[in-house]
Amino acid sequence: MKRIMLTVAYDGTDYHGWQWQPNGCSIEEVLNRELSRLLKEDVRVKGCSRTDAGVHAAGNLCVFDSETRIPAEKLCYAINQSLPEDIVVQESREVPADFHPRKWDSVKTYEYQIDVNRFPDPLRRRYAYTTYYPLNVEAMREAACCLVGEHDFASFCSAGSSAETTVRTVLSVEILQTLPPVGGDEKHMTAGSLTFRIRGTGFLYNMVRIITGTLLEVGRGFRTPQEMRQVLEACDRRKAGQTAPPQGLCLREIRLINPPWERLQTE
Amino acid sequence: MKRIMLTVAYDGTDYHGWQWQPNGCSIEEVLNRELSRLLKEDVRVKGCSRTDAGVHAAGNLCVFDSETRIPAEKLCYAINQSLPEDIVVQESREVPADFHPRKWDSVKTYEYQIDVNRFPDPLRRRYAYTTYYPLNVEAMREAACCLVGEHDFASFCSAGSSAETTVRTVLSVEILQTLPPVGGDEKHMTAGSLTFRIRGTGFLYNMVRIITGTLLEVGRGFRTPQEMRQVLEACDRRKAGQTAPPQGLCLREIRLINPPWERLQTE
Repeated sequence: MKRIMLTVAYDGTDYHGWQWQPNGCSIEEVLNRELSRLLKEDVRVKGCSRTDAGVHAAGNLCVFDSETRIPAEKLCYAINQSLPEDIVVQESREVPADFHPRKWDSVKTYEYQIDVNRFPDPLRRRYAYTTYYPLNVEAMREAACCLVGEHDFASFCSAGSSAETTVRTVLSVEILQTLPPVGGDEKHMTAGSLTFRIRGTGFLYNMVRIITGTLLEVGRGFRTPQEMRQVLEACDRRKAGQTAPPQGLCLREIRLINPPWERLQTE
Repeated sequence: MKRIMLTVAYDGTDYHGWQWQPNGCSIEEVLNRELSRLLKEDVRVKGCSRTDAGVHAAGNLCVFDSETRIPAEKLCYAINQSLPEDIVVQESREVPADFHPRKWDSVKTYEYQIDVNRFPDPLRRRYAYTTYYPLNVEAMREAACCLVGEHDFASFCSAGSSAETTVRTVLSVEILQTLPPVGGDEKHMTAGSLTFRIRGTGFLYNMVRIITGTLLEVGRGFRTPQEMRQVLEACDRRKAGQTAPPQGLCLREIRLINPPWERLQTE
């Protein structure tokens, strides 16, 4: 028996999220079904990050145990043959039998794509949220600063979370103008694309989407940048803004801190 | 009766191209059906560029005649309500009654997205072609240079073209590394994204895709950069490379040269 870790990328548009759901198809369900069929075993993957319905990933992680004699690093080639084209295993490797990426220290990077335009771009409609309100990008950057550090993020956590504590550590926030702004004045972007990138050691249920929704209200001038700190300190979900829609969100990367196989390599 | 021009963006993945086809749904067909329903007239759009099945557009143009009393510039808001989400009218405006964008001088910009990776990125699978061969980007740039200028592009034209002449003018070619290369040596990109951008006053049937396919063969080292000029001068389709698959191609922009309404504004 060996434990294998997969790096999984997916277009979440047509799925009910990572986790198995009674009422719709999940990423986990497709992986379990296709891995079980390929390996002729009852495979149950254990995921690292349970992304919501409609949310994407470039590098989610999961592990499972198998008796297979296929070399772990070759498994990605085999399984990609039978996966639908919106789920791709980017890498597969053997890990220690007790290794679980959710229990290991890691840095997660999420990105939320925002388009400012009169109408959605049909080529980005699955991967970006489009707003026709001009956005004050500098005000959004100012507001986002207070999130960095260890804080109680209860204001940015949806009901239904099973987390024991709402304290989390955000390592960095960036608001990048990824497509050059067209028109607008110095302060307001009236057309273009923004990427809100946030890195941290862990995130609460809907945390990135609620932060994004609140930052959008700052960008639109409905809130001042200073209010962001008040929202954070209130520890009250009702003080924060709306949860931004799922399609703009992508889990870009889960970087494991000093994983055991890297220590083995350097020893 | 007035003539209205639409700037149309679409995700071509699920369509049999721009032009009406007996065996599948086309962009033209959806526009005709939804405009006819909205305006309660028999609308027939006349397109500027007949993109192939699976090819995308950020700014194709078309015109149609209508008795509608909806102001032309407001029509985009109305029609977008009934169009599927993979077709979006970005702009609508009134043009002179005899104006046809296909007959007017213009500069067209096409982009072809190439990902170099072991496996396709599920978030880019609809909009990029993935190759696992390392690419020599400098060799591709060297090869592409000879295309600029007025040439007989018969080598890069598929059979079935109704063009009277195969002479066309290419104004510029660029090969941009749009996602930073990961790994590889100085010469070969083993992971990352390229955009091949080509501007010209007109293109032949499949011309951009055949040029891209030939450049990919140069990038992989199957041909030398110098062979590109020989292919061009041969005026023989059999000398060029394969037609690159449609999903990587997007008609970014059709810029009309001195359109009549701009002359009116400056006079």
